Amino acid sequence: MEYRIEKDTMGEVKVPSDKLWGAQTERSRNNFKIGPAASMPLEIIYGFAYLKKAAAYTNCELGALPVEKRDYIAKVCDEILEGKHDDQFPLVIWQTGSGTQSNMNVNEVIANRAHQLAGKNIGEGEKTLQPNDDVNKSQSSNDTFPTGMHIAAYKKVTQVTLPGVKQLRNSLKRKAEEFKDVVKIGRTHFMDATPLTLGQEFSGYVAQLDYGIKALESTLPHLAELALGGTAVGTGLNTPKGYSKRVAEFIAKFTELPFTSAGNKFEALAAHDALVETHGALKQLAVSLNKIGNDIRMLSSGPRCGIGEITIPANEPGSSIMPGKVNPTQCEALTMVCAQVMGNDVAMSVGGMQGQFELNVFKPVMASNLLQSARLLGDACVSFDKHCVSGIEPNHQRIQEHLNNSLMLVTALNTKIGYYKAAEIANTAHKNGTTLKEEAVNLGYLTTEEFDEWVQPKDMVGGLK
Amino acid sequence: MEYRIEKDTMGEVKVPSDKLWGAQTERSRNNFKIGPAASMPLEIIYGFAYLKKAAAYTNCELGALPVEKRDYIAKVCDEILEGKHDDQFPLVIWQTGSGTQSNMNVNEVIANRAHQLAGKNIGEGEKTLQPNDDVNKSQSSNDTFPTGMHIAAYKKVTQVTLPGVKQLRNSLKRKAEEFKDVVKIGRTHFMDATPLTLGQEFSGYVAQLDYGIKALESTLPHLAELALGGTAVGTGLNTPKGYSKRVAEFIAKFTELPFTSAGNKFEALAAHDALVETHGALKQLAVSLNKIGNDIRMLSSGPRCGIGEITIPANEPGSSIMPGKVNPTQCEALTMVCAQVMGNDVAMSVGGMQGQFELNVFKPVMASNLLQSARLLGDACVSFDKHCVSGIEPNHQRIQEHLNNSLMLVTALNTKIGYYKAAEIANTAHKNGTTLKEEAVNLGYLTTEEFDEWVQPKDMVGGLK
Amino acid sequence: MEYRIEKDTMGEVKVPSDKLWGAQTERSRNNFKIGPAASMPLEIIYGFAYLKKAAAYTNCELGALPVEKRDYIAKVCDEILEGKHDDQFPLVIWQTGSGTQSNMNVNEVIANRAHQLAGKNIGEGEKTLQPNDDVNKSQSSNDTFPTGMHIAAYKKVTQVTLPGVKQLRNSLKRKAEEFKDVVKIGRTHFMDATPLTLGQEFSGYVAQLDYGIKALESTLPHLAELALGGTAVGTGLNTPKGYSKRVAEFIAKFTELPFTSAGNKFEALAAHDALVETHGALKQLAVSLNKIGNDIRMLSSGPRCGIGEITIPANEPGSSIMPGKVNPTQCEALTMVCAQVMGNDVAMSVGGMQGQFELNVFKPVMASNLLQSARLLGDACVSFDKHCVSGIEPNHQRIQEHLNNSLMLVTALNTKIGYYKAAEIANTAHKNGTTLKEEAVNLGYLTTEEFDEWVQPKDMVGGLK
Amino acid sequence: MEYRIEKDTMGEVKVPSDKLWGAQTERSRNNFKIGPAASMPLEIIYGFAYLKKAAAYTNCELGALPVEKRDYIAKVCDEILEGKHDDQFPLVIWQTGSGTQSNMNVNEVIANRAHQLAGKNIGEGEKTLQPNDDVNKSQSSNDTFPTGMHIAAYKKVTQVTLPGVKQLRNSLKRKAEEFKDVVKIGRTHFMDATPLTLGQEFSGYVAQLDYGIKALESTLPHLAELALGGTAVGTGLNTPKGYSKRVAEFIAKFTELPFTSAGNKFEALAAHDALVETHGALKQLAVSLNKIGNDIRMLSSGPRCGIGEITIPANEPGSSIMPGKVNPTQCEALTMVCAQVMGNDVAMSVGGMQGQFELNVFKPVMASNLLQSARLLGDACVSFDKHCVSGIEPNHQRIQEHLNNSLMLVTALNTKIGYYKAAEIANTAHKNGTTLKEEAVNLGYLTTEEFDEWVQPKDMVGGLK
Repeated sequence: MEYRIEKDTMGEVKVPSDKLWGAQTERSRNNFKIGPAASMPLEIIYGFAYLKKAAAYTNCELGALPVEKRDYIAKVCDEILEGKHDDQFPLVIWQTGSGTQSNMNVNEVIANRAHQLAGKNIGEGEKTLQPNDDVNKSQSSNDTFPTGMHIAAYKKVTQVTLPGVKQLRNSLKRKAEEFKDVVKIGRTHFMDATPLTLGQEFSGYVAQLDYGIKALESTLPHLAELALGGTAVGTGLNTPKGYSKRVAEFIAKFTELPFTSAGNKFEALAAHDALVETHGALKQLAVSLNKIGNDIRMLSSGPRCGIGEITIPANEPGSSIMPGKVNPTQCEALTMVCAQVMGNDVAMSVGGMQGQFELNVFKPVMASNLLQSARLLGDACVSFDKHCVSGIEPNHQRIQEHLNNSLMLVTALNTKIGYYKAAEIANTAHKNGTTLKEEAVNLGYLTTEEFDEWVQPKDMVGGLK
Repeated sequence: MEYRIEKDTMGEVKVPSDKLWGAQTERSRNNFKIGPAASMPLEIIYGFAYLKKAAAYTNCELGALPVEKRDYIAKVCDEILEGKHDDQFPLVIWQTGSGTQSNMNVNEVIANRAHQLAGKNIGEGEKTLQPNDDVNKSQSSNDTFPTGMHIAAYKKVTQVTLPGVKQLRNSLKRKAEEFKDVVKIGRTHFMDATPLTLGQEFSGYVAQLDYGIKALESTLPHLAELALGGTAVGTGLNTPKGYSKRVAEFIAKFTELPFTSAGNKFEALAAHDALVETHGALKQLAVSLNKIGNDIRMLSSGPRCGIGEITIPANEPGSSIMPGKVNPTQCEALTMVCAQVMGNDVAMSVGGMQGQFELNVFKPVMASNLLQSARLLGDACVSFDKHCVSGIEPNHQRIQEHLNNSLMLVTALNTKIGYYKAAEIANTAHKNGTTLKEEAVNLGYLTTEEFDEWVQPKDMVGGLK
Repeated sequence: MEYRIEKDTMGEVKVPSDKLWGAQTERSRNNFKIGPAASMPLEIIYGFAYLKKAAAYTNCELGALPVEKRDYIAKVCDEILEGKHDDQFPLVIWQTGSGTQSNMNVNEVIANRAHQLAGKNIGEGEKTLQPNDDVNKSQSSNDTFPTGMHIAAYKKVTQVTLPGVKQLRNSLKRKAEEFKDVVKIGRTHFMDATPLTLGQEFSGYVAQLDYGIKALESTLPHLAELALGGTAVGTGLNTPKGYSKRVAEFIAKFTELPFTSAGNKFEALAAHDALVETHGALKQLAVSLNKIGNDIRMLSSGPRCGIGEITIPANEPGSSIMPGKVNPTQCEALTMVCAQVMGNDVAMSVGGMQGQFELNVFKPVMASNLLQSARLLGDACVSFDKHCVSGIEPNHQRIQEHLNNSLMLVTALNTKIGYYKAAEIANTAHKNGTTLKEEAVNLGYLTTEEFDEWVQPKDMVGGLK
Repeated sequence: MEYRIEKDTMGEVKVPSDKLWGAQTERSRNNFKIGPAASMPLEIIYGFAYLKKAAAYTNCELGALPVEKRDYIAKVCDEILEGKHDDQFPLVIWQTGSGTQSNMNVNEVIANRAHQLAGKNIGEGEKTLQPNDDVNKSQSSNDTFPTGMHIAAYKKVTQVTLPGVKQLRNSLKRKAEEFKDVVKIGRTHFMDATPLTLGQEFSGYVAQLDYGIKALESTLPHLAELALGGTAVGTGLNTPKGYSKRVAEFIAKFTELPFTSAGNKFEALAAHDALVETHGALKQLAVSLNKIGNDIRMLSSGPRCGIGEITIPANEPGSSIMPGKVNPTQCEALTMVCAQVMGNDVAMSVGGMQGQFELNVFKPVMASNLLQSARLLGDACVSFDKHCVSGIEPNHQRIQEHLNNSLMLVTALNTKIGYYKAAEIANTAHKNGTTLKEEAVNLGYLTTEEFDEWVQPKDMVGGLK
């Protein structure tokens, strides 16, 4: 491999000739061989591209950067956002906890690429842009990295998670309406209980997701607040007057998202409670989705020895050994995602709680966990909807069998003959393997006619009064 | 011990004569010897007292219960709320996951106590109230227990947690203002950084708590929604028309809190995402408070070999072996509470995710974890404020020493001579153990006068521009 | 209330006259009003009683304490261990993280009680014992508290957890043998699969607990190592020669448990990885037990609309509204305990990871979580065994119905006609609602006789070959 | 793109012509678009390669597979293990929870590649190997996937984690010896305490890792147990006699690792407590490493306003804005890894606890979390050692300053003048800003000579007696 020499304040470093990055990126590559290469999420790099461009525009507007430099920076940022330099960001999550090295990676790539755009070879002639003094002007890793991660997180949550969850929610809502007249046995404690409709059962899932969506959306204003302008410790040292408000406006403009400047920059550097808060809502969704996925798994169980009250699409052969087997694989993928998100939530807490003084240095691990959870949940909801929920059908025969058999219909008699006599009927029928009606009449508590009038499953689900 | 015989649908049970509870409570006492006795939080019992009274009023108003029975129920509920029967609730958290046995405990105590109020001996004569048919009328454990736990949780959060956190927040805010002119060195990566004021540092803590308070408050509407009226599976079977809305109004009236009837009762029985959501906000506060507590611990460290920039009150001898030692004990209590809350959050998730079909049967464990976290956080904030934060004073001498020594003041020169030359100055001073000014001048990058003009800590903290 | 004046190095404190504690306990009571009073587990106080007595014997043997003082200390420790002073330890978990105040609580109670035993009134005359110089001789909170918590934890794990888990394991083992010939359908992905015996199914539970017991037992040697002798920072300052080894021997003798002196006292004070390790094994057991409890819940589901392949004891009426309902309440208590233990495990990690320099100051929260988990698991296993597992019976009729219906018996044909043809048979039978045999013959892949010979459930469970 | 048609029991599927996979892999690709492509860890694929080869050898030896087919299978497995087909495994973690589709991916790739090796084009002519009947012979996904994940996990733990942790442990041990005479002040509660040597401090870290290594190693026997031979539900259906023992022997031979056949195959399919157990030990190590990393971060803090008692290597410029800044970046990477591992541990528990009946369907998420944690911990330890620990040096000047200043040296006087007088000396010196010696003499408790004789830091660290 061919190399060129790059320099930073510590001296010279050999960098592969065909790469745009500089000395500090290369140092980091060598110093942090932890896990697979290039694990730093590209979404964060793109977040940096937005903010570097916005900083250049703001610096220029405030007289701190010439137009020519601004345009070089903006041009490279646009290239990055077009995905043209995805292979120029080789660093890992497990680097310095401020993400300084990824900030410098971006600074170096922008500076070197600008040099190329200026028609020069990297390393030859006067630098077109200085990574620190120009590209990083009015910035610190300490405010850029959290800004980049907020941009990335906000985009992921609003463009992947929420649309995915809403798609699933809407599909469940359609099913709830479709199934609104399908009376079925209810189950509490996994035991037979009084009836409800399949639509009512699904309406509970819809309500869970409605609450989850609301909870997630209510975290967005905090997530929309950007640290940029705080620089090293939150005081805004080395920024021109008016910078922090203006740079947030540029970011909002470039991303078309409602970003604002954080009200307290000290908090924005030293704590990442905004990420903890948003991930808390993702975790709540995971808790909800685990319940929903597990319910659908169990309701569709069988085909002959389970609950079997619904059928789900058969998307693939279910077993490598059992011929003809079909499995609730989408439920499994979904609930595995939920397990991951619940785990990630602890990683978020453990990272978030350990800020010290003016900086939290668990930024990359927090950002990557949030981005993973946000994406997995969104993707999994879409997959679960498309390949499972939208194809759910009631198994009317099975539903009717269960309904006819259930002893818990006896509950309707509480208000007629009291809980104790009703219990006697149910217990006797259970013991004798008979029907409620038989025993109700045998015990002399009511007539056949009364039973038929009072114990009507369809009258027991009439909605809340 | 003397016993009397109590009955339920399964038969007879011996109950201590001096106790108000009945057969089902006694069965539970015997069947669930798990952990210390009477671990079911009293707050939940009180929640039951509110709702039983409200149900009686609603049932009466809607023609389903005579006034006399209503008044008996209400009278006993009032006695319970006055704390007169605290020793009549011996059951544990680790019982049936629907809390049925605690519901029956309340039903039985109310029925037996009403019998006494009617001037009779328990077990003698016709029952004044039937536990199931009267006290539990229009109710199921499946909607009463979640209602009781929402009442308890809402009260705890609004009456203990939020006031406690706000007291601490306000105290930190006062300190932030008090310390607004105390310029000190900043620290990032636990290493010397550019300066800020001690007030700015504390303002970050205030901002953290402001976000946490907001996050917690935004979970309250969900928590205010009550399951009551859903009865067994959410359909409202065996409730009179208009019941669920009216009973929530009575609960709101009796508690003077803005409770409402849950929009979807299926969700309200089968999922406890409202508790997961509220606890998520408590966990966020724990994450914030851990950072704050740890910072104050470290800032006050010493007295001679630590950071030592603030002093905290000396509340007690710190060591049984080291004479004269004073420790940041309030920080320790606070951060231990945070550890517990972070753990409890996982218990909440694990419980919340495992609802099956029409019922989540992890109600008691979820309720007790939330109540513990809510109380501990509130109490710990008050204690931390009263015995630590309100007595914090800057150690001006130490702060000044650190400020004078710091090499990171060099950052002010970035905009004058560029990052690279500034780095050279700092590196040289570090290597030689000299001052920035000496080396700046030695290296010929600026004059003494320029240094004195440009490198002024007080000018480096001027707030965001 | 009447008070007397107690003193410590900070001055005078008013203490209720009828209490044995002194100034520092009272300070802590006032300074840490966090959560319910007296939450510090008594097990830890008893651990202190063992170690204080052992320290007194060791100090005396090594010439550092007169026999008379030794005997006073030992006498009070014995009284404490007899439970005579349980109400003299009013402090909370949420105090200083070293547990210093509970150490002083014990020191003060011993000193004051000894004064009484010497026939004097507390506060009058020369002190019989000095809390710090005599009772705490050769000790620090920093080594006594971890010693006390190791003693408490070791006792709880070996006397409650392990016996409880083993009782359940043995009961499951008996059931596995009892059910060894009950052929039933298997379920994978909650879908019908090839058969196994009910005994084999239960043998998996036994194996899980066997691994869990082994894992827990393998943590005991670490837990048996005691910090005592490290004093303030691990160096053993102010201890007589030979102290640390000898004091562990006395503790082993008094407790009749194999305690040893920790090999590295710096680790024993600054880290509590032994607790983390033991709790990790408790968490593994919780994971196992959650699976077992949930399986039994589901296998017993019904009685008419569920899986229903086993019956469990009906211990109590299951519902306050649904007459005759029986629920798997022991499974619910057990799985709620599992949720708590999984949560506590995170509290352990969060506490354990935050040791700083020579001391971990999350001792009380770690100790209390471990003790709670250890007790709950042990108790819950006993309850689950006694009130559920030992009464499990197969529901032969249901088992046979499921077995006869299952399409997955087709798997036996893989080795005869290949996976693809077998799949065709199963898929056709599923589509047509027919039997495997019908379709196997219809499709012409085998004869009735071949089917009857090859597809025999009892031949499909024959154990591993 | 060009396609060919592949078939499975559900029908035809178009597959890219240049790919070796078949119908089921392609279905999974389309049905599970969750997260980045190809997230299923290659280590698991390699685990499959070992086991498929071993199964082929066993089947052949036991007469169930012709030598020719065995050799084809073995040849392709070898190619896979050489990394020649890494791009043929496009599936994600978030698929069916049994990993069936990755099992089929391997089966299909082996079958198609064998066809090529036989000199034919994929899809043309009679199949050289049938994916299900030949490659998957005597296997099910339900026993192969757990076998593959155990192989992968065992290799990762023994080849990456343990060597990495041991390298760090040995380096810390060398430092502990190197620093054994460097007397320094101790810190408890982050406050000045009695002295110890820097070597003693580091010996605590060594002890932590020794315990962690031991804990991790003691989980290996469970992890070495393989599910293979259980097939669909643990009964070993469709396996030749002697298969399960023999196939484990072949795996042991091919991997040169001590794998054995699991004693209870029902447990091995339905529960993954072995992974939970191993990850519990990884989590313990994370707890330990977080303490160590944080200590070193804090000990090296400064350079002028922190603790500063050690220096660590300056590996890269620390800040993009603060010139000359050096940060404890390796500590940060390490502690971020610890946060991830603690989070992953919860994902493991949540997955592990949800097995149902004969199968746990959280296999991929559990395997991937364990593999990530195992790798990250191993890599991070190596990086932390190489770029930080091995270069640690004491800052003798700073250490001496702290030692001279500390008030806690007074503890040495406890045994001479008692705790109370010693406290008076320390408190007075603290109040007056004077030295212990001055106040000791002023207060008349001892002479200058006595002080100099009794208060000698080097005598206070003399090791445990």
